[in-house]
Amino acid sequence: MSLPRLGIIGVGLIGGSIACGARAAGGVGGVAGVDADAANLREALDSGVVDFAYDDIAAGAADCDMVVIATPVGAIEAVLRALRPVWSDRAVYTDVGSTKGNVIAAAERVFGQVPSNFVPGHPIAGAERSGVGAARPDLYAGKRVILTPLPETRPAAVDAVETLWRCLGARVSHMAPDHHDEVLAATSHLPHVLAFALTAMLGRKDEQDEIFQYAAGGFRDFTRIASSDPKMWRDICLANGGEILALLRRFREQLRAVESLIEQRSADELFALFTEARDARQRFLDQLEK
Amino acid sequence: MSLPRLGIIGVGLIGGSIACGARAAGGVGGVAGVDADAANLREALDSGVVDFAYDDIAAGAADCDMVVIATPVGAIEAVLRALRPVWSDRAVYTDVGSTKGNVIAAAERVFGQVPSNFVPGHPIAGAERSGVGAARPDLYAGKRVILTPLPETRPAAVDAVETLWRCLGARVSHMAPDHHDEVLAATSHLPHVLAFALTAMLGRKDEQDEIFQYAAGGFRDFTRIASSDPKMWRDICLANGGEILALLRRFREQLRAVESLIEQRSADELFALFTEARDARQRFLDQLEK
Repeated sequence: MSLPRLGIIGVGLIGGSIACGARAAGGVGGVAGVDADAANLREALDSGVVDFAYDDIAAGAADCDMVVIATPVGAIEAVLRALRPVWSDRAVYTDVGSTKGNVIAAAERVFGQVPSNFVPGHPIAGAERSGVGAARPDLYAGKRVILTPLPETRPAAVDAVETLWRCLGARVSHMAPDHHDEVLAATSHLPHVLAFALTAMLGRKDEQDEIFQYAAGGFRDFTRIASSDPKMWRDICLANGGEILALLRRFREQLRAVESLIEQRSADELFALFTEARDARQRFLDQLEK
Repeated sequence: MSLPRLGIIGVGLIGGSIACGARAAGGVGGVAGVDADAANLREALDSGVVDFAYDDIAAGAADCDMVVIATPVGAIEAVLRALRPVWSDRAVYTDVGSTKGNVIAAAERVFGQVPSNFVPGHPIAGAERSGVGAARPDLYAGKRVILTPLPETRPAAVDAVETLWRCLGARVSHMAPDHHDEVLAATSHLPHVLAFALTAMLGRKDEQDEIFQYAAGGFRDFTRIASSDPKMWRDICLANGGEILALLRRFREQLRAVESLIEQRSADELFALFTEARDARQRFLDQLEK
């Protein structure tokens, strides 16, 4: 049996790392890359991340056994539409979008119902850097990947996608799409929005008062995710707006409560809140190291 | 001329690092340490961070040429009160409190007016770890220290404190106390309060939904400062409440504006805001590396 041919739609950090990780693991017979950015696509080809380069989605995906859609979330519906004419019942399709409800809704709009060989997925990995130049074969080693198959998704398709991620060293979980979007809104989307909002606000103050020269390592780490790709995060905010809005409102209430504690000089309650936060973070760290 | 004798009130991470840094630089003739925590004080003595250990503030400070108050902000008034009987016109006094207006107010309450040989100061350095075991001589290398002398502060006292920090490798700036408190509220106090508030809120959600297992490196960095000392940050919130409250209110307005953009699906405005944030952070990083 020959090794499967892999198609990567969007050969950036995420897609490029899947390509070179799968190749390093010896699990693919050839990688076809599709990218709208000609310079990025050429770099992917020249550096050996992909074997074949296409600017046309249907052409690139046509003969593949597995196709990974690794574009920003906002582009997935258009990619599915471009794939429809060449969609093969013998192939398996997946995506890496940071939100899942909207990807499933897009698939329903394009195909009438979600194809049984399409497995929605999300690797929880990334970096501020982007583009194929940042890709590396070990990006997913030890990282979590969440698959959100539907009742109608074929088990064999789920197994194939799971095998791909396992060969990249990832730990695979399954989750209902709604639950995925709720969990990721809390652990990823809300923190990103807060970091962007704070850094923009303080950036305006810096232009007046030159405050950044007195910021240190804590500020650097707190704002690191504000260096993320604005386009990707615009898409996520639109794709998972409901969950993000609910959490933003809750967080504003939480801040209002902290303000009350400061206004009333409630030393014990402030201490208790900060201790609760420190303990919660320790619980998170303990899990991260497991 | 003999080398000056240094007194450190509070031999934790901050005070301990001053002691061992000054010793490593060869700038002190002996270090007297005062600490209320007997085990911490013994560790400071056994590890050679201090030469003499005292549990009494007046006794420890009595023969020193320079006394550094390195306790949490909330304890500084009590320390000044304990120092008053042995306050020497020939010595120089300084502190390392993260807020300056309240330290100056405390000095006024204790002495009637701020002594001309007391130089309020703040090194912008630290870590989540605390205690003398975390102290290291290079903690201040390349870090900023802000001094907030008053018009009545003796220039010779300011020079002496500045010399101490320079010999630890720090970069010293001067600032009006109010401006210090406004700047630090933005670059340090607000981010800490946000990190504590978010981590406590999500910790409650984690108890229900086990969300932390799906959080990754971005979340770890964003919440790092939520592992800071709750007592220290309670004190800072009470000491600089006015500035922190003003910024918390502004930040809630900023979040409300982001919510509107998401509600109205204003893609271009979201993209512009996130780009503004990313550019502002790059400006901060460029300065940090200078």
